[in-house]
Amino acid sequence: MTSCFNRCKASLKLHHLAENPFDLTKEGALTPERLARFSAQACGYHFLYGTERVNADTMMALGALAEETDVIKKMEKLQAGEVMNFIEGFPSENRPVLHTATRDFFENPNPVKAAREAAQLAKQENEKLQKFLEKIGDRFTDVITVAIGGSDLGPKANYLGLKHLQKPGRQVHFISNIDPDEVITTLQGIDLKKALVLIISKSGTTLETVTNEEFLRDRFRKAGLKPEEHFVSISCPGTPLDNKKQYLENFYLWEWVGGRFSTSSMVGGVMMAFAFGFDVWMEFLRGASAMDKTALQPNIEKNIPLLGALLGIWNRNFLKLPAVAIIPYSQALSRYAAHIQQVDMESNGKRIDQAGRPVDFETGPLIIGEPGTAAQHSFYQELHQGTNITPLEFIGFKENQSGGDFEWQGTNSQQKLLANLIAQAIALATGKSSNNPNKVFPGNRPSHMLIARQLTPFTQGALLAYFEHKIAFQGFVWGINSFDQEGVQLGKELANRILERFKDPNSKPYPQGDVFLDVLKRT
Amino acid sequence: MTSCFNRCKASLKLHHLAENPFDLTKEGALTPERLARFSAQACGYHFLYGTERVNADTMMALGALAEETDVIKKMEKLQAGEVMNFIEGFPSENRPVLHTATRDFFENPNPVKAAREAAQLAKQENEKLQKFLEKIGDRFTDVITVAIGGSDLGPKANYLGLKHLQKPGRQVHFISNIDPDEVITTLQGIDLKKALVLIISKSGTTLETVTNEEFLRDRFRKAGLKPEEHFVSISCPGTPLDNKKQYLENFYLWEWVGGRFSTSSMVGGVMMAFAFGFDVWMEFLRGASAMDKTALQPNIEKNIPLLGALLGIWNRNFLKLPAVAIIPYSQALSRYAAHIQQVDMESNGKRIDQAGRPVDFETGPLIIGEPGTAAQHSFYQELHQGTNITPLEFIGFKENQSGGDFEWQGTNSQQKLLANLIAQAIALATGKSSNNPNKVFPGNRPSHMLIARQLTPFTQGALLAYFEHKIAFQGFVWGINSFDQEGVQLGKELANRILERFKDPNSKPYPQGDVFLDVLKRT
Repeated sequence: MTSCFNRCKASLKLHHLAENPFDLTKEGALTPERLARFSAQACGYHFLYGTERVNADTMMALGALAEETDVIKKMEKLQAGEVMNFIEGFPSENRPVLHTATRDFFENPNPVKAAREAAQLAKQENEKLQKFLEKIGDRFTDVITVAIGGSDLGPKANYLGLKHLQKPGRQVHFISNIDPDEVITTLQGIDLKKALVLIISKSGTTLETVTNEEFLRDRFRKAGLKPEEHFVSISCPGTPLDNKKQYLENFYLWEWVGGRFSTSSMVGGVMMAFAFGFDVWMEFLRGASAMDKTALQPNIEKNIPLLGALLGIWNRNFLKLPAVAIIPYSQALSRYAAHIQQVDMESNGKRIDQAGRPVDFETGPLIIGEPGTAAQHSFYQELHQGTNITPLEFIGFKENQSGGDFEWQGTNSQQKLLANLIAQAIALATGKSSNNPNKVFPGNRPSHMLIARQLTPFTQGALLAYFEHKIAFQGFVWGINSFDQEGVQLGKELANRILERFKDPNSKPYPQGDVFLDVLKRT
Repeated sequence: MTSCFNRCKASLKLHHLAENPFDLTKEGALTPERLARFSAQACGYHFLYGTERVNADTMMALGALAEETDVIKKMEKLQAGEVMNFIEGFPSENRPVLHTATRDFFENPNPVKAAREAAQLAKQENEKLQKFLEKIGDRFTDVITVAIGGSDLGPKANYLGLKHLQKPGRQVHFISNIDPDEVITTLQGIDLKKALVLIISKSGTTLETVTNEEFLRDRFRKAGLKPEEHFVSISCPGTPLDNKKQYLENFYLWEWVGGRFSTSSMVGGVMMAFAFGFDVWMEFLRGASAMDKTALQPNIEKNIPLLGALLGIWNRNFLKLPAVAIIPYSQALSRYAAHIQQVDMESNGKRIDQAGRPVDFETGPLIIGEPGTAAQHSFYQELHQGTNITPLEFIGFKENQSGGDFEWQGTNSQQKLLANLIAQAIALATGKSSNNPNKVFPGNRPSHMLIARQLTPFTQGALLAYFEHKIAFQGFVWGINSFDQEGVQLGKELANRILERFKDPNSKPYPQGDVFLDVLKRT
C-alpha cells in the first residue's frame, strides 16, 4: 500500500536528470516553441510551465513516476470513497476522504455507491441551505463566522475572491483566534439584532471556537437577545453542536470531509450562499467538481493538478528546493496563499509514510505568498538575488472582476498587472548578466502559471479543487497520509497543563511551564 | 570593509559546535535554571531563548562572532549617518541609512553632526504634521493611503496593531496593488468629500502608486471635487510629488530613509497621527528610539536585537535551517509577519558581499508567519512533524488591548492564548516519543520569544526597531549590503517591454513575452 518513491525506477532516472536540469538562462532557451509546448488546459485555465527547469525527458520521467506510484488509481479510490486516511498497522483515523462528494452533483457524478451516497447527503444539506435562506429572507444583514484553521482560512480566502458579488446590504465577519481582542473588535459596529452567527467546528469541541461561541452568546444575552434565534451550527451529526434547542439550524458535514478540505461543504456554503446568493454558490461547486473530473484524467497533459504536483516534486525532491511561493496577480486573492499554506503544510508536513516508517526524503514544502504586484515590492528581491531558490506558482486573469479600469500612459491597470506577471516569469527564468555584480541576476529560478479569463465563481471553485488535488497527488507520490494532523496534538495537551496552573496556582507544579508563567508575573 | 564571516575564528568554532548542538529533547534539558539563564530584557520586553539549541559555549562563540565582525561599530556608524548603503568598487546607491534619525528626539540623541541634522529635519516634519492636523481639524473622516512595498506593509501592520486607539469617526484605507479592482473596491462606501488621500512614493515615480494616484484624481474630479484639496504627498524633496499646486501639503522623507525602514518617517506618521492622534504617534516613536539605543549596547545580554540576530545566524548558517516563522500571539499583529517578511527578505536576500564578491554561505532566510493561535491550526503540523525544521520567533503580551475579556471553564481568553504560546515553545523543543510512529514528535525545533506587558504605542515602536536592527545586524555579520534592492529592477524593465506590446501590437516583437500575450488572446 505504500509508495515506491525514492526507490522506484523513475526516481533514479529523475535524480540522474537533476544533475543537469534544463538551463533556462541559455541564450535562446525560452523559445516561443518551448513556451507553447509546455502548456496544458483545463476548466478554463491555461497551465504554462515552459519556465520550469524541465525538458521532454524530465516530463517523461515524471509521467513514469506518476505511473509507478499509481497516483491516478489512488485518486479514483479517493473519489470513490475508499479509506485513504490511515496508517497501516497503527491506530489512525481510518476514514474515507470524500470532499469531492460535497460537490458531485453536476456532470458525470461518481457511480460508486459510497460516493453516490455521500453526494446525496451533501445535496440534501444544500437543499436545506436553500430553504433556510428563503426562510430567513432579509432578517439578517451580517454574518459572523466563528471557526479556525481550514474552516476559517478556506472560506475567508474564497469569500474575498468573490466579494464583488456580495448582495447589497450584507456583510461578513470572521472570528477565529482565541485572542479576546478579536471578538471585541469584530463586534464593534455590528447590530447584533440583525446578525447571524455560524459556529463551525467539525468535532464541536475546538477550544477556540467553543470559547468564542460562549463569548458571543454572552454578548447576545447582554444585548437582550436570544442566542438560539441567531446561532447556526455547522458540525458532524452527533457532536455537542448538533442540538436543535441551541441553534436556529444545524448543518452537517461528516468525518470524511477534512477541515482543510471543507470549503465546499456547508463550512463554506452557508456563509457564501448568504453573501452571494445560492446560485453563485452552486456555480462555485460546479467549478470545483469540473476540476475533480480533470484530476481523474490519466493523461498528464490534460490533468493539470497532477502536472502541478509532479513539477512540485521535481523542484522539491530532485532540485532540492525547500519552499514554494504562491502569487496570485489579483488583489481579490489576497488571502489565497494563506489558505494554500494551510492545506499544503498541514496535509504534507509529514515525516512517516503510510506504513508508519520514517521517510528518507523531503515531504511538504514551506509555502509563502502574497498578491502581485505588491509582492514584487516585498520579498521578490530574495527570489531574484537571494541564496535561496524558491519556485513560484503564479495565478492570473485576463480580465478584472469589476469591469471598471483606468487607462494611463497608453495601457490600463489590468494590462499593467499582467505585464508584470509575465515579466517576472521571464526575468526569474532567464536572469541577466552584468559587469556590476550587484546587477547580476543568476536566473534559473523556476515558475509556472495558471491563467484564466476571469476570476468567477466557476474558476474560483476550479482553483480550490486544483490545489486540493495537486496537494493530494504529491502525498500519493510520496506515499504519505495527507489527510490527518497528529502534529497538532502535543501542543494542545501541554496548553491544558498550563491552563491548569492559571486556574489554580496551588495545583501540581509544571516546572517548564511555570518558568514562563513567572516571567509573565514579572512583566 | 567586508566581513570575515565564514572565514573568521568564531565561525570555525561555531561550525564545530554545530556538529553537536544542545539537545532540547534530553530528559531534564529544559530546566527552570536554563530557561531563566537564557533570557534578557529591554524596552519592556523579556527575551526568552532557553528553547534555542544553544548552551554557554554557543553563546560565547556567537558573542565572539559579533566582535570579530565588528557589528556594534557598524551599528554606531549607521546611527551616526555614515555611508552604509554601498558596494565597494562598483556604482551603488552610496548613501547613509538613517531611519534611526526619524525618531531621535527623545533621550540620549545621537551627538554626531550628520545624525543631529537628520533628526532636526525629521523633527521639523513632525512639527509640520502637528500643525497640519490642527489645520484640517475634523474636515476629513477617511484617510486613503496609496503606497506599495515597505511604504504600505509597515504602516499597515503598525496601524492594525494599534487600531483599538482609533479616534471615533475616523477610518483608514489602503491601496497598494496596480490591480484596478483594488481601487474600485476600496472606494466603495467612502464619501470622497471627506477623504484625505496620501500619495506615498520615495522616488515619486513608482508605477503602481502614480497610476493609482491618477486613477483616484480622476474619480475625485468626476465627483466634482478638486484633488489638490484632498491629496497630500509624502516623498523626497524635489521629486514629481513635491509640488505645492497639486497637493494640500508636501511631507518629506530623504534618500537616507529606505522604503522598508520608513514606517517611523512621515510615511507612517501622517496616517497614524490622523488615526490615533499626534501623542500616540510620538509615543510610538519614543518606543522605537528606545530600542535604537538598546541596539548600541556592546553587551549582548542587554542588546536584544543583536541577540535575536545571532540566534538567527546560528540557526541559518550553522544548523542550516532555511526559514523562520514569525508568530505573534495577538490578532492585532495579524499583518506583522508580512511586514517583517518584507524588511528581512528585501534587506538580506542578497548573494554578494559588500565588496561585490558572491558569498559562499546562506544569507536572508525565507520568512513565513500568521498570528497564533490561528497558525496552530494552519501550518504547525509541518513545524512539529514535517521534514523541514523551521525556527520560530514568538511575540506575546501579558494583557490584551481592549481590557475586556471572557472567563470560561476557569480561565479567560487571554490566559488561553498565553497558555498556547508557552505550550508550543515547550512542545517544539522537547518533542515526545510514542509507540505509534504517527504520534512521535522529534522535538529539537528551536524557538525564542519576546514577551511584554501589553501591545502599546511604545512597545509597538520598540518592536518595529527590534526587527529593523535584528535584520541590520545579520547583514553586518554576513558583510552584505542590507540597504539596497537591485533585485527588483529586471522585472520592471521586462514589464515595460510587455507594456509596449500592449500599447501597440505593431511595435517591435518581443518573442518571449508575445507567447504569453498570445495565450491571453486565446483565453
